[in-house]
Amino acid sequence: MEKAFQDYYPESYSHCYGCGANNEHGLQIKSYWEDDNSVAVFHPKEYHLAFPGYVYGGLIASLIDCHSTGTAAAAAYRQENRELGSSPEFRFVTASLHVDYLLPTPLGPPLHLRSKVTEIKGRKVVIETDLIVEDKVTAKGKVVAIQIPENLVPD
Amino acid sequence: MEKAFQDYYPESYSHCYGCGANNEHGLQIKSYWEDDNSVAVFHPKEYHLAFPGYVYGGLIASLIDCHSTGTAAAAAYRQENRELGSSPEFRFVTASLHVDYLLPTPLGPPLHLRSKVTEIKGRKVVIETDLIVEDKVTAKGKVVAIQIPENLVPD
Repeated sequence: MEKAFQDYYPESYSHCYGCGANNEHGLQIKSYWEDDNSVAVFHPKEYHLAFPGYVYGGLIASLIDCHSTGTAAAAAYRQENRELGSSPEFRFVTASLHVDYLLPTPLGPPLHLRSKVTEIKGRKVVIETDLIVEDKVTAKGKVVAIQIPENLVPD
Repeated sequence: MEKAFQDYYPESYSHCYGCGANNEHGLQIKSYWEDDNSVAVFHPKEYHLAFPGYVYGGLIASLIDCHSTGTAAAAAYRQENRELGSSPEFRFVTASLHVDYLLPTPLGPPLHLRSKVTEIKGRKVVIETDLIVEDKVTAKGKVVAIQIPENLVPD
């Protein structure tokens, strides 16, 4: 089975609420390449609601955030023609997050994230994302991700 | 004890993951006026991390989102000189959410949100928020909130 971007993260990054495999309370997002897009699928829980029948906007922002920083790292490896997880490691944090909520997102069906890297330059990667539910784009996200400063890299 | 904005929400709104008192899995954000600012305090759990020692950015986005829509409703009541919770009810959804992450947010101390309404016109309210931890602004948010369309108002 194909490994996700996040499966290459070192142990110190595996606690993230959004995408850490070791965070049992978290969302455990998994992201993959699909040609030049990065994709992820999330199955919201029944308690991830804003009001009955609709997904909570903060969850959508959280999914876009983590999927984008994972995509930024994967894109940086790809640009250098390096394997994910090879040294030196690329890790990114979010400098800014923007979400436009276009339609209410129904709670129930899987949420599909589909992202494009629209800029990659120096330590900065820009990722634009569609959130798609039953073939409708219900939200659009834009994240500016920055390669993590050395003094913040966890051991 | 003073009631929070969210304590005036009708039952149908009390399930929200961000601010619903009846969502046992959720964040249960409580927002209050402090003169012309709206404020909230959140105590993150140990699992709300990005990596060890730092708060997860998606949580910050979620707090800003719900605190802002609550503030939008409270501001709409205030503009009409009406009591919170009086009829007809004001409820807002997020049209767009923007967060600038200025500094890493340490995990441990309480997170303080302090917001100003910078525009209120027709069905639209704009809210700008500082996220403050130990007297440092670590993130800034801007939410455009829109009064909920009638066809989406839950029973």
